[in-house]
Amino acid sequence: MGSQQTRIPVGIVGITGYTGMELLRLLLKHPVFELAAATSRQEQGKTIKDIFPQIQDQAAADLEITPPDPERLGDTCRLVFLAVPHGTAMDMAAKLLDRGLTVIDFSADFRLRSAEVYERWYATRHVQQHLLSEAIYGLSELNAEAIKQARLVANPGCYPTSILLGLYPAVSMELISSSSLIIDSKSGTSGAGRAAKLDMLFCEVYDNFKAYSLGRHRHTPEIEQELAGYAGGEVTVTFSPHLVPINRGILSTMYAHLSPEADPQSIREAYVQFAGEHSWIRIMPPGRLPQVKMVRGTMFCDIGLVVDERTGRLIVVSAIDNLCRGASGQALANANLACGLHASTGLDLSPLVP
Amino acid sequence: MGSQQTRIPVGIVGITGYTGMELLRLLLKHPVFELAAATSRQEQGKTIKDIFPQIQDQAAADLEITPPDPERLGDTCRLVFLAVPHGTAMDMAAKLLDRGLTVIDFSADFRLRSAEVYERWYATRHVQQHLLSEAIYGLSELNAEAIKQARLVANPGCYPTSILLGLYPAVSMELISSSSLIIDSKSGTSGAGRAAKLDMLFCEVYDNFKAYSLGRHRHTPEIEQELAGYAGGEVTVTFSPHLVPINRGILSTMYAHLSPEADPQSIREAYVQFAGEHSWIRIMPPGRLPQVKMVRGTMFCDIGLVVDERTGRLIVVSAIDNLCRGASGQALANANLACGLHASTGLDLSPLVP
Amino acid sequence: MGSQQTRIPVGIVGITGYTGMELLRLLLKHPVFELAAATSRQEQGKTIKDIFPQIQDQAAADLEITPPDPERLGDTCRLVFLAVPHGTAMDMAAKLLDRGLTVIDFSADFRLRSAEVYERWYATRHVQQHLLSEAIYGLSELNAEAIKQARLVANPGCYPTSILLGLYPAVSMELISSSSLIIDSKSGTSGAGRAAKLDMLFCEVYDNFKAYSLGRHRHTPEIEQELAGYAGGEVTVTFSPHLVPINRGILSTMYAHLSPEADPQSIREAYVQFAGEHSWIRIMPPGRLPQVKMVRGTMFCDIGLVVDERTGRLIVVSAIDNLCRGASGQALANANLACGLHASTGLDLSPLVP
Amino acid sequence: MGSQQTRIPVGIVGITGYTGMELLRLLLKHPVFELAAATSRQEQGKTIKDIFPQIQDQAAADLEITPPDPERLGDTCRLVFLAVPHGTAMDMAAKLLDRGLTVIDFSADFRLRSAEVYERWYATRHVQQHLLSEAIYGLSELNAEAIKQARLVANPGCYPTSILLGLYPAVSMELISSSSLIIDSKSGTSGAGRAAKLDMLFCEVYDNFKAYSLGRHRHTPEIEQELAGYAGGEVTVTFSPHLVPINRGILSTMYAHLSPEADPQSIREAYVQFAGEHSWIRIMPPGRLPQVKMVRGTMFCDIGLVVDERTGRLIVVSAIDNLCRGASGQALANANLACGLHASTGLDLSPLVP
Repeated sequence: MGSQQTRIPVGIVGITGYTGMELLRLLLKHPVFELAAATSRQEQGKTIKDIFPQIQDQAAADLEITPPDPERLGDTCRLVFLAVPHGTAMDMAAKLLDRGLTVIDFSADFRLRSAEVYERWYATRHVQQHLLSEAIYGLSELNAEAIKQARLVANPGCYPTSILLGLYPAVSMELISSSSLIIDSKSGTSGAGRAAKLDMLFCEVYDNFKAYSLGRHRHTPEIEQELAGYAGGEVTVTFSPHLVPINRGILSTMYAHLSPEADPQSIREAYVQFAGEHSWIRIMPPGRLPQVKMVRGTMFCDIGLVVDERTGRLIVVSAIDNLCRGASGQALANANLACGLHASTGLDLSPLVP
Repeated sequence: MGSQQTRIPVGIVGITGYTGMELLRLLLKHPVFELAAATSRQEQGKTIKDIFPQIQDQAAADLEITPPDPERLGDTCRLVFLAVPHGTAMDMAAKLLDRGLTVIDFSADFRLRSAEVYERWYATRHVQQHLLSEAIYGLSELNAEAIKQARLVANPGCYPTSILLGLYPAVSMELISSSSLIIDSKSGTSGAGRAAKLDMLFCEVYDNFKAYSLGRHRHTPEIEQELAGYAGGEVTVTFSPHLVPINRGILSTMYAHLSPEADPQSIREAYVQFAGEHSWIRIMPPGRLPQVKMVRGTMFCDIGLVVDERTGRLIVVSAIDNLCRGASGQALANANLACGLHASTGLDLSPLVP
Repeated sequence: MGSQQTRIPVGIVGITGYTGMELLRLLLKHPVFELAAATSRQEQGKTIKDIFPQIQDQAAADLEITPPDPERLGDTCRLVFLAVPHGTAMDMAAKLLDRGLTVIDFSADFRLRSAEVYERWYATRHVQQHLLSEAIYGLSELNAEAIKQARLVANPGCYPTSILLGLYPAVSMELISSSSLIIDSKSGTSGAGRAAKLDMLFCEVYDNFKAYSLGRHRHTPEIEQELAGYAGGEVTVTFSPHLVPINRGILSTMYAHLSPEADPQSIREAYVQFAGEHSWIRIMPPGRLPQVKMVRGTMFCDIGLVVDERTGRLIVVSAIDNLCRGASGQALANANLACGLHASTGLDLSPLVP
Repeated sequence: MGSQQTRIPVGIVGITGYTGMELLRLLLKHPVFELAAATSRQEQGKTIKDIFPQIQDQAAADLEITPPDPERLGDTCRLVFLAVPHGTAMDMAAKLLDRGLTVIDFSADFRLRSAEVYERWYATRHVQQHLLSEAIYGLSELNAEAIKQARLVANPGCYPTSILLGLYPAVSMELISSSSLIIDSKSGTSGAGRAAKLDMLFCEVYDNFKAYSLGRHRHTPEIEQELAGYAGGEVTVTFSPHLVPINRGILSTMYAHLSPEADPQSIREAYVQFAGEHSWIRIMPPGRLPQVKMVRGTMFCDIGLVVDERTGRLIVVSAIDNLCRGASGQALANANLACGLHASTGLDLSPLVP
């Protein structure tokens, strides 16, 4: 498979986190991309199989992990995935773009079009503001054409992915009042990253459930910016994240008042049409609701619809895998598009159940 | 301990479920109540230690499980806890009351004051409607005086317990608009009971997260009935339950528009005053939110408050243990009150962390 | 993919269990096999997407589930996977063989060569004893040549798979004393099947750990039979299964006295050679031990070796995914071989971590 | 309760770990001991409720955490629990003993009678060797008389507690061959402590199972030392720890050849007699095996017995809660004895199930 096709060399900057690990899982099965470089300051000098024993037997297992040197990445790669924290990503992105590479950035550094909003929510100076207008927000269902032309793709946040896909039909077709949005999201623990922090220890998370960052989570402006684009006007949301004691998965429960003209059938039709155009969107049949296990390890976004006639509200429930659909898989879809491949290349994934 | 005091004989009808099991845990340490009868149709003839090996060494271990015979219960008990399904409970309650016993009913049969509402939501004929006006809704913080006089206590549902305690100060003091309530609750799996159902198998629940019964959960009318009492007028809520892959715990995240006159300080003061009067209510300090592990195995209801000034909303987060505070512990508090004891007798419990 | 190749129609008898579900996951990505029939007594008349919402969008989603009729299976399939309980499987296998089909049987009905041993351990009459001599034990690393010729493959048990692969080099090369074997195995909960049983409820298994069936688990004679073949003489083992509160995975810790001539280096060499010949066997480097997450969803058997010089023992630790490697994936490898394909066709799987 | 009795002031050195947290849970319900000092270098200056929000409402909540100053501890406490790492503990113990306090040490520093063995297994110089002969090994069932006289109690390791209680009757009565012992133990994750380490993150442990430190775990010499005392001669064991993805609980599965004179009945009698003398030991009825959930949060050690007649082996399975019985609860029992109280004072605990 792919033997007739020239392989495209790609690099991962920041391979040791969960998103790097997931991207590696997907790249190793990709028919066109070939892992040519993997970097990590902490683990440099080791090979991939030293840090990820699960892939000791694969082609990439003996690849040496190097420090993140833009020069060297420029020499060996055509495209680079940046899986490093916000703040760090912006400079590296600029250097790689200067060397002619395509960059898919996992961080928030290029997601917000306003540097001022970025600096307020992230408490970080944006020192590459000239790139903001060029960066494409990489929600592949909605921005595919722009991504195909992009040099710099801002890969969406995991929560925003689950929320934007869940609300797009209702907001863009004005089936709900965009001023009344309440979003109650629940995420698996891999969303917190792979840093050794006390509150992410097994014994702190297991058999527990909690809310966090209510009213002040950094994904809020990203959600509002994109929804405003769909709505054609400013949108303010209440966004409440919660931590679920599982590894993967985000379930977002979203509430809004129905528009006067909306009825259960028109709502369902709008969503079914959206799903008809995008193979990773699946609308649950009436009476069924999504579950995170049904999308585990895949690119699917499963959406359930409930019209609560007693209160005049639409409740949308969406489920994604935060690491695959909400991060690394989506980055790979964006890389596919940016390299002229079909978005789904190497991403025809089935959930592991149970 | 308690040796000077006459022990009060009590019975449990329906001991094999999780609420029966939890009640047993608590009763075995109670200084006044003495387990005199335990019934189960399925397990009759066995002893308690046969079905609950964890208590093989305690005083009650050799008590024989009997069929649920009102006559016999009337002879041996002064008070009976009914831990059987709705529909079944109403007749047994009537028979036990006829024999002069006090009844603490775990089911929904006597929670709703309107038989018509009950019949609509539970799809069950109410054949003991004459008892509805007599039954006291057993939320011990709010109805203690009535419970002290009660023959029949309707023990609150687990979700309503977490929600009513979380909203009482805001609703009763008109700090929020009661017409805008959205309640997003998350419950551990023991809330689903101990019946052998496919969708409650370990492999179906583990590493999963889902919403269920959106807009149609049977606890909705109970929540609305009680909130209406606090608000002094009708209340309609959107109530969305979710299933968390843990054993115990409910976390409810509740959203409402702030009243024009409400401000962060007045809200906090109202809650702190409520907690000051009721030792099981604990208000988190500013910036902290509750976690279910902090209340595991206890009677506490931990409450966190977030005023989201961007959207003009109050977010209240409450956490309880659904089996203890939300069922068996609360039943025991009600039994204490109904028998002239202090509500907290035998209920001075500390959480097991981690 | 595979468009040039004629697709081979296959059937699954008993699709509703976890092994049926896993087989479906794998078959849907298989380049040659095509699901032509799926049966279940309970769910007949429904489609596959009705019972497995995770695959609502795939080609097989609309396939109707039928009752298990050998006639119809004979007409539509060339090979059938039998994922039904022991006792039931033997008759169905006989009928399908009569109709010229190849049968891969997941049950224990054809694993033991002695009908007498089968009847003693399974407390079931064997009514198809004439087939026992023909059935091939489907451990694909060791019996590939025979499986290629087989009409009837007895797919190994999940525990035996982890144990036999872990012990083969040591036993066959006489590096340990086969009379001293103690096997302490730990399995995820999907191994218990998908029947609605009280002791498999989430709340019974979660946050718990236990041993079961010590000294009398039915996989014992299967382990002893196969080890005896490797050892060239009778073998008796102590086999102790335990239940781990996770979905998938078996880890077996195996203890034996070292033979006088064995030393750490010769042992490692024997295992490394075994792994060199079989791509799904991976030997951990010195100082590393296997973990079930590193093999999740795959065909790998990861093996760790510890020579305990203080006690003169070899400790072998092996890890597999019980559903994939230990059941459905192995069945598919056997089907591949029996149909003239490479064993690994459609089975180039990577673990999902985390 | 206890109002007539003078309270005994005690201190905890190292309160921030899981054993400190568990000890606090137990001390807050203790009728005689009163928490007078709690130390932590990292958290000094905070109050207990700052670091453990679960106890914000209790008497001790406002106690200030201080640095570990022996002088100050000597002034305020009569007894101190040392919950600090080995190496650190030995000096602090010496200083506290010098000031006339009783010391219950959670570390390994005084468990091994031979300084040479300690230094070899722990790679740490023992600089308080003169205290080794004085220290009492605090397994309260077996050493109660000595503990009553002790100034310095070496609290047993969690694994050794589960193993020694499980093997004592068989070894001391020579029902098994002590030279053939294989011990396969499985521990919940709290046993690894509360340090922020990558491999203890939720996503690394959850849905996983592994063995670790095979043949070289530091509890090995402690197990062998104590078993040698029961056996009246040297004992060498194979000890294999495993990590279970749960918070609490150790289950040890222990294998040994039966002595010629042992038979199932004599074995059961020996264990039942042991349990008859010690109320925390519970022997499972024939055919039943222990589960960690049945002892969660308690002092019980549940023991199951299987005589495997096919292989001539005894299999003993024991279950304890590693934090309570295996650490803090046991320390409290030792403190009780050392202060002239009944061992079980404040330790009449019931398991939380589910």
